[in-house]
Amino acid sequence: MGSSTVKAFVTGAAGFIGSNLVAELLARGCEVAGLDNFHLGSKRFLEPFVGHPGFTFYEKDLLEFDGLPASLAGSDVVFHLAANSDISQGTARTDTDLKLGTIATYNVLEAMRIAGVPRIVFASTSAVYGEPRRFPTPEDYGPLLPVSLYGASKLACEGLVAAFSNTFSIQAWIFRFANVVGKNGTHGALVDFIRSLRNDPRRLTVRGDGTQTKPYLHVSECIEGMLFALEHAPERINVYNLTSEGTTSVASIARMVIEEMGLQGVDLSYTGGPRGWPGDVPFVDLDSTRMKSLGWTARYRSDDAVRAALRELLQQY
Amino acid sequence: MGSSTVKAFVTGAAGFIGSNLVAELLARGCEVAGLDNFHLGSKRFLEPFVGHPGFTFYEKDLLEFDGLPASLAGSDVVFHLAANSDISQGTARTDTDLKLGTIATYNVLEAMRIAGVPRIVFASTSAVYGEPRRFPTPEDYGPLLPVSLYGASKLACEGLVAAFSNTFSIQAWIFRFANVVGKNGTHGALVDFIRSLRNDPRRLTVRGDGTQTKPYLHVSECIEGMLFALEHAPERINVYNLTSEGTTSVASIARMVIEEMGLQGVDLSYTGGPRGWPGDVPFVDLDSTRMKSLGWTARYRSDDAVRAALRELLQQY
Repeated sequence: MGSSTVKAFVTGAAGFIGSNLVAELLARGCEVAGLDNFHLGSKRFLEPFVGHPGFTFYEKDLLEFDGLPASLAGSDVVFHLAANSDISQGTARTDTDLKLGTIATYNVLEAMRIAGVPRIVFASTSAVYGEPRRFPTPEDYGPLLPVSLYGASKLACEGLVAAFSNTFSIQAWIFRFANVVGKNGTHGALVDFIRSLRNDPRRLTVRGDGTQTKPYLHVSECIEGMLFALEHAPERINVYNLTSEGTTSVASIARMVIEEMGLQGVDLSYTGGPRGWPGDVPFVDLDSTRMKSLGWTARYRSDDAVRAALRELLQQY
Repeated sequence: MGSSTVKAFVTGAAGFIGSNLVAELLARGCEVAGLDNFHLGSKRFLEPFVGHPGFTFYEKDLLEFDGLPASLAGSDVVFHLAANSDISQGTARTDTDLKLGTIATYNVLEAMRIAGVPRIVFASTSAVYGEPRRFPTPEDYGPLLPVSLYGASKLACEGLVAAFSNTFSIQAWIFRFANVVGKNGTHGALVDFIRSLRNDPRRLTVRGDGTQTKPYLHVSECIEGMLFALEHAPERINVYNLTSEGTTSVASIARMVIEEMGLQGVDLSYTGGPRGWPGDVPFVDLDSTRMKSLGWTARYRSDDAVRAALRELLQQY
């Protein structure tokens, strides 16, 4: 990805990870085309790129197939990040992830096939593992029985990526992300807690019992890891966990948010139960051995990634 | 399933496995409602049940959601067999399996959720394993990287079944079938070879180099195994390979067909290459240990299942 001639197409370009990725790709000298329907993404996140000669933007919904092959034509690689990343929303309306995840991903792959785009990077998730019996969970863990419809959709997309890759000779990199945090975050524990405490600094209600524990990866390292593997992992289909070391509980995050905001005497309460919401997975720990063997490790540990992200988010929200 | 009060709903009831399952469920005293759109299924396969007091039939496409919850209401268990089982068709039109597999399965699960149906049996496939590196392949093999869009769709359906099961308390049995053969088969090597030789008994052209080797399971045992596991496997989500012992090559099948038809001097030729068609998997061998531990084993070995199926099919075609 070091060459200035690389043409990258980013779906979900106005989203959390997408907007950070566009910034990094432009910084590395790539030509970048971005696409977003502003479902979760924000026009504000695109402002830094407006007028940049290397940046083109398509406001478009991936459920509209027409025109998609033409938009993708000439791209060297598609970073497919667009999705509904709000798990609880997928449980409330059960066809959310089928449409915004599975069918949208089919459209991207079908358009790539027609346009002859040779490479895809797909943002998957630890949620494909459901509630595994092995920790840290390696990439070859099975069977994959997701708890959430979000996880089910990401698994469906992984299968579609694999089948298109095998049948139509598209090279693929599938990353199963830990919880990604940092600048331009749109939802999740950190953003939710900050918003809640900005609104009422006297109390914070945490969904679940606070013991939900997961690895948090800083978005800068998420992007660095993807670009590293894209350069160094040579298989036709490359599947990698992308995670930091260590894990952080939701209760710790609540304490860190209160600390970073300089608040005192906050009435901290928990709704109780092991899950924050239906479809939540209480414990996640991803095996990072495969990325390490490739030569890449996250520098921030999970707690440090949360701390760094909080400082960025407190400047935004 | 021994009780006469069990109400079973069978999707794909006019299909190969569906029609055999309906016959067995009626024989066991169940009330059976069947649904089919006659995409691959045949009205002829339903003739034995016409007028049976325990049988109801819905001619309906699973892509039409309206009315589906009402049709399912009151069922104790759904056997969801409807799918496009013709792998090469899914490669030619890439949205075939997305629609007839993934979206149809979402509709079944959503209708079950609304109607409060507590149990699903889902017909999956060895194709979810793609081209695994471990033989015989066990249920906990990963990562699952299907070769065909058919396999991708079945993987997507497994994920949907798991997520609906976990989120909405539906109990699930997922069976990854070997190649199923027998009465009412609609396509596949056996049927294709018989049809070709009925048409021209002097020559037979086999797709691929004939070395494609897979386990073949007789449809009667496929059904017996499903019903056994439904009764004996108690987890919320139960995933089982359903296979015979041994494997059979396509070249052997060709020889057996010629033998059973009593033909001589047939000019047998091969199109060449390791795959019969794009998306074909050249070698399959499924680990049957989990079903054995539950107490069930197929009696026919793979070669014997093929032989028995051939004799049944030769009476039909």
